[in-house]
This record gives sequence, C-alpha cells and structure tokens, in this order.
Amino acid sequence: MRSRHEVAVVGAGLVGCLTACYLARRGYEVTLYERRPDPREAAPERGRSINLAISERGIDALRRVGLDEVVMKAALPMPGRMMHAPDGTLSFQHYSADGLRSINSISRSDLNRTLLDAALAMPGVRACFEHRLTGLDVDSGRMDFETPDGPATASAPVVLAADGAYSAVRGRLQFLPGFGFSQEYLDYGYKELTIPARDGEYALDPGALHIWPRGQAMMIALPNPDRSFTCTLFWPKSGPGSFEALDTVERFEEFFAANYADAHALMPDLADDYAHNPIGHLVTMRTDPWQVRGARAVVGLLGDAAHAIVPFYGQGANCGFEDCVELDRCLEETGDDFPEALARYGSRRKEHADTIAELALTNFVEMRDKVASRSFLLRKRLEHGLERLLPGRYVSRYELVSFSTMPYAEVQRRITRQNVAVAAGALGALAAAVAVTARLARRR
Amino acid sequence: MRSRHEVAVVGAGLVGCLTACYLARRGYEVTLYERRPDPREAAPERGRSINLAISERGIDALRRVGLDEVVMKAALPMPGRMMHAPDGTLSFQHYSADGLRSINSISRSDLNRTLLDAALAMPGVRACFEHRLTGLDVDSGRMDFETPDGPATASAPVVLAADGAYSAVRGRLQFLPGFGFSQEYLDYGYKELTIPARDGEYALDPGALHIWPRGQAMMIALPNPDRSFTCTLFWPKSGPGSFEALDTVERFEEFFAANYADAHALMPDLADDYAHNPIGHLVTMRTDPWQVRGARAVVGLLGDAAHAIVPFYGQGANCGFEDCVELDRCLEETGDDFPEALARYGSRRKEHADTIAELALTNFVEMRDKVASRSFLLRKRLEHGLERLLPGRYVSRYELVSFSTMPYAEVQRRITRQNVAVAAGALGALAAAVAVTARLARRR
Repeated sequence: MRSRHEVAVVGAGLVGCLTACYLARRGYEVTLYERRPDPREAAPERGRSINLAISERGIDALRRVGLDEVVMKAALPMPGRMMHAPDGTLSFQHYSADGLRSINSISRSDLNRTLLDAALAMPGVRACFEHRLTGLDVDSGRMDFETPDGPATASAPVVLAADGAYSAVRGRLQFLPGFGFSQEYLDYGYKELTIPARDGEYALDPGALHIWPRGQAMMIALPNPDRSFTCTLFWPKSGPGSFEALDTVERFEEFFAANYADAHALMPDLADDYAHNPIGHLVTMRTDPWQVRGARAVVGLLGDAAHAIVPFYGQGANCGFEDCVELDRCLEETGDDFPEALARYGSRRKEHADTIAELALTNFVEMRDKVASRSFLLRKRLEHGLERLLPGRYVSRYELVSFSTMPYAEVQRRITRQNVAVAAGALGALAAAVAVTARLARRR
Repeated sequence: MRSRHEVAVVGAGLVGCLTACYLARRGYEVTLYERRPDPREAAPERGRSINLAISERGIDALRRVGLDEVVMKAALPMPGRMMHAPDGTLSFQHYSADGLRSINSISRSDLNRTLLDAALAMPGVRACFEHRLTGLDVDSGRMDFETPDGPATASAPVVLAADGAYSAVRGRLQFLPGFGFSQEYLDYGYKELTIPARDGEYALDPGALHIWPRGQAMMIALPNPDRSFTCTLFWPKSGPGSFEALDTVERFEEFFAANYADAHALMPDLADDYAHNPIGHLVTMRTDPWQVRGARAVVGLLGDAAHAIVPFYGQGANCGFEDCVELDRCLEETGDDFPEALARYGSRRKEHADTIAELALTNFVEMRDKVASRSFLLRKRLEHGLERLLPGRYVSRYELVSFSTMPYAEVQRRITRQNVAVAAGALGALAAAVAVTARLARRR
C-alpha cells in the first residue's frame, strides 16, 4: 500500500462514492463530505429519483473496481423502448440490432447506498454527513462547513467536487477570474408519478422503457424491482398543456386522462402524486476549466458539478462514472501528480461532456416527438438492417452511446463518417440503377 | 408630479445613475445602493478605468434627459483610428464615410461623477454608499447590506440591478430555477499604461483612437483632457508574448520596447505602471431572463449585470444606456406597470445585447489582426466609396453601430441584406461586362 496525501471529496452521491473507491484503491486517504444525512438511515426525497438507466459506460466503470455484479443484481434490463400511442396502441423497438443488449433500470437511492457501502468498506475512506460546504479557500484547500453541531473546518491538498449540478464548490470557483460557466434551463418541468404493481405483478411489460410521446410533451416509465413503475412526466412549464395551465388536481387529471388514457387507468395514486411530488427543473451546465490550482491545493470537478445534462439520453450517471475512470487513468499516467492529472483529465473529458450534453438535448425532441412518427420507425429499421448487413462497420449512434465505451465526441465523428459513406453508397447504387435502366431502355 | 412607489437601484455606476435620472423624471422615489464609497470623495481605482468611447447611442440616451451637453463637454472627439505599425509607420482611417462623425473619449470616473451629481439633483433620489448587498428576497423585495456601521436592511417593490458584471443581485438570482446564465472569459488579460503629456502637449494626435495591432495582441490609446493618453495593452494570459511569460519588469520592458517601439519612447512611467496596475480580465456574460417576479416584488437587470461584453466595439456603456431608454419606453407603454414593463424591456433588449456581445468579440480579432492588413484598408475604402455613392442606402456596420440608434440586431439584419445586394450588383456588373466584351469580340 502506497502512502499518499489526503483527498477531500465533497458530495457522497453516485460519483463521489465511486471516486472514493477509485482513489482508495490507489492508496489515498479519502474523506467524503456530504450535505445530507447518511442515506442508509434516511428515506429518499420524494419525487426526486428519476430512475437511472445504467448502460455499458457505467457498467465498465463499476467493473474496473469490482462493483458491477453487486450493482447489476438490483437492475432490471430494458432491451428496447415501448411506445404508447394516444389510442393505447403499443409498438416495441429493440435498442440494439441484435435485440440482445439492454440499458438497465436502477433506483438512484439503491445505487447510492450500494456505492457508499463499497466506498466505506475500502481502507482509508471515511464519511462526514450533514456537512454543508459554506466556504472554500483554493490556495490552502481549507473548507468551511455547517453541521448540526455548529461550524466546522477541514483542509486537504486535493479537493474534489462531486456535489452535483448545484455544486457548492463550483459556486465558489465561479467567482475566480477566468472560470467559465453556463447554466441553461429548458422551458420544461418534470413530475414523478407511479404505476403500482397490479395483483402483485407488473402492470406493463417490465422489459422495456415505456414512452408516451405527445409532440410537445411526453411521459416515460421505468420498472422497479418491487413491480411498480416510476413514471416521469415532462411537460412545458407554461402555455397550453403545461404545469402552469393545469394547476389544480382536477384540471391536471382531466387532461392527463384524455392524453395518457392507458397509463391513467393504471394510476390509482395520481392525485396524491400530483399534490405531493415537486416540479423538477431541467438544466444543462457547462464549466471550463474543470480544475483550479491554488498555491498549496488543487480543486477538481467531477460528474454533474462539472457537466450537468438533461436526462434524455440516459447518460448522466454513466458519463459521471466515466469521469472517475479517466481521472484514475490520468493519475496512473502522471505517477499520481494530482494537479497534472486533473489538468489532463479536464482537458480530455471536456469535449466528450459537451457532446453528450448536446445529444441529450436533441434526444428530448426525438423522444417526445419523432419516436411516434412512421419515418422514425422506418429509419430505425433501416439502421438496424445496415447494422446487420455490415456488422461492426455500421453501428447506430444509440448503440455506440449506450453499448460501447467509445468517447462521446468520437461517436459523433464516427457517425458523421458513416453517414457520408452511406450517402455515397446510396448515390452509387442510384447511379448504377440509372445506368441499368438506361441500358434496358436502349435495348427496347 | 405623480406619486409612485419606491425603486431600489443597486449600483451607482454609469447605468445605475442614469436609470435613477430616468425614473425620477417619471416621479419615482429612487434609492441608489452602492458598494463603494462616494466616488466624488474617493480616488478612482488604479488601472481600472478603460476610457470609454461614447457614441450616438449613449449620447442619445443622455440627450433624452438633458445630460448630453454637460457630459460631452468633458469628451474628446475621435473621428478615426490611427494604426501604428511595428516600424512606427502611421495610417489613419476615418470612422465615417464623410469623415465628420466621431466616437468620444471620456473617463469613466468623470462620467460617473457627472451622472451621480445629475441623479442626486433630481427630486426623490438619494444614495447610500458603502452598502454591499449580501442578501435578496425576491418575494418581498427585502435586501440585506453590509455597511461600515454593521448590517442594514431595506426593501422595495422594485429592485433594479445595475451593479455591473459581477452583480451581487444577479448572484442571488442565479440560484433560482429557470434562471439561465453564462460567463465566458477570453484567454487575454489587459493592463493599463500611460503616455503622459510632453512639454504640456499631447504626445500623439488626440483626434484618433490609436491602435497598435500585433496579430495575437494589441495596444490601444485614448486621449484624456489633461493631454495624456490612457493605453490599454491586450495580451494573451499565457504562451509566448503573454503576461505569464513576461513576468518581470525587465522581460516585460524588453519585449514591449521591441514590439511597441514608438509608444515605448513616450512612456517614462512604464515600469511603474507595469508594477502597480493589475491585470484585468475580459468576460462576456449573458443572462436569461432579465427580470424575476416575486410574490410582492420584481427584480430587473440593467447594463453589465444583464449583459457584460468585451470592450472591443466601444459599446459597453452605450448599450447599457440604451437599456435605460428602453425601460423608460416600456414604462410609458404600460402605464408604469413595472413588472409588465420589465418583462417587455427584457424580451426586447435581449437579442440586441446578444448581438453586440458577438460583434465585440469579433471586433477584437479585427482590431488586433486585420486592421494592419492591406485587404482591410482596401475593404474600408470600398465601404466608404459605396457609402458616398449610395448615401443613406449603403451604410457600413461600424457606422450603424456607432453613429445610429438602430437596434443592434437590426443592424446585423441590414448588413446581411446590404451584402446580398452588393454581391448581386457586383454579379450583375460582371455579367454586363462579360456581355459587352463578348459583343466587342464578335465585332472583330
């Protein structure tokens, strides 16, 4: 075991806990500082889960520290998407051309507890709960906290922020000159609803991610191990059919029943969910750089603290877990020179995080609007046909994002090349067809 | 005099003071809260002025409240730009085709004092200095301040933030869901230097904005009434020829003397300026929306607090002053319904602020790199030729930005139309020439 200096990880969420596992394996002393109480002792916040869809990138990051099996035990595979038309007609599409690969539904709170247990079981890892960061001095690595027992301070030569989209650490860095940051909200909110088990069984097919595409709005549902589904309604904040317009339980339920009839029939708790679950917000956040070097300390950002994205590609946690892998790789490459490793990590990961942020925004339009159209279904069939015809040479964007670990920006470059090649092939085929037709015409 | 509710204006800088003038004229009680001491009693911060170039938009906004004459008395007209080549060769270009129009050099601190005097001379306006905003409740309009006498609070149904790029008010709004914000820094810093008067006279032509274009870097100089020039050096933060690389007074002066020889000869205080003036940062900030409505109060943003831009089009203050005009117009249109007026103001001004932000970034490249090229000089001559040929029908972007009050986004749309028309005209002329040549050739 190498003896190394201490690392403070602010935030004991998914990325913070996995970071602690990676660092403990390298011999670091890690302290996790978490604003909330110990999640293993407290109930999760209501309506704030958005089930996660763990896919290959996340699984790969877990596998490298031996956590894939324990995590995947609690996950439910979803090999495809099930579209619910307004009249209740269902249509199913596999996510992969071979129909064998799945994204995996898992509850955020269960996953968090598993990762926290794993981190705290590693030598040198400890956690301080109910520690809300109120101050940070980048030069000394000194952190101020508010705790139930009054103010507390701590310091570490390396401070890693894994404290999520509303990161308190990043809030401090934002005041430093040269620190670029943006936050962009969608004009949409979300609300969680529930489809409970019916006679002890799933009320819908549990082997799918369910989508109710409704043009300017949509609902999705992911299965839970207790045979319920967690649904998330994505509606405009204002205008017709919005949370603002449908502001009483009666108006809400009437509109919902008219537009999501098949789901409505499965939701006995709708009024209660509507009344008690908050309306969430959808934000994309970008930072540049992802690390700041002080005189005697260095601060780095991981996960949502560096790059919060909207949930529509199911990649938020997967992308955050990839951060842990890349940081570990950079530490290995630099002989654990933490400032250099963080600089390298940030400059490498930035373009990939920017790419998945864009893809996630684009996918919202696809999910709520295009998946319902015939041309979309046709395109997916064509894509899967090409994938089977040219195995390993033509692969759809969705498969590369969800079922590979190819960095996101490389996925985009590959898709561009593929599209050019397919267009050239199609043009060639067209030219050949024209030539043949012309020859046949001349023979007549 | 109409009796109206109170308005709190946070920030007694240029835009805050002008806002107070406009609101007092409408009969509002206005309190200015300013973090700094009274500028009429304190020395300005060293190296933080960047002389302003006031042009038509700013003058128009001042004229509407009768302040143009008193302000312009202290301003020095600059009818053109003077380029300094590395070998000391000078070339002058008029900003306008007729050579008669000028942008106007004025010191920020003088202008601030004039506007503060004007605001406090209006009925119902008062100022609280050394009031640093530390808290804001959007629902009640309650503000917390730190003052030399301890904490203070105040509240108003309308809170306007004119507290600049690092706005404390906006800092509070950023935590509200749905509030979009971005800050992007250039990889350039700036440092102020001085060319003092020589034998009581200007050492350079005072009738020009002086530019030393050096490709990846540049210096500019604006005249002051005391016959000195304030110079601003824009250099990369790191890399060759950067502030980071030239980090001792010896290295700095050697590099400066080699690249800005003619200016160097006029700068006896160079070493002192280098040592004592800070390196400033260049940031573009965008917010969306520009106003937030609480239960019993409304908060609006004006000037740099809403849209900080880089200084390369000389439009920062001009654009901020236009905000005051537009807010006044919206109050007039809505019968002083402040929440509605602010919403209207924000939705109208946003695209114009975004446009000038982009133009200012683009103009940096033009100033430091292109103004030195022959093709730039040729293009400017062509533009001015077209302007004289088609008076009022062809007007350059620079003239529309600096010598008109056409909203910035409309300027961009007009320039696009003009370019299309000119290209079509050129094509037509080419076609005619080809036709004539062909006819002549046939005659032979």
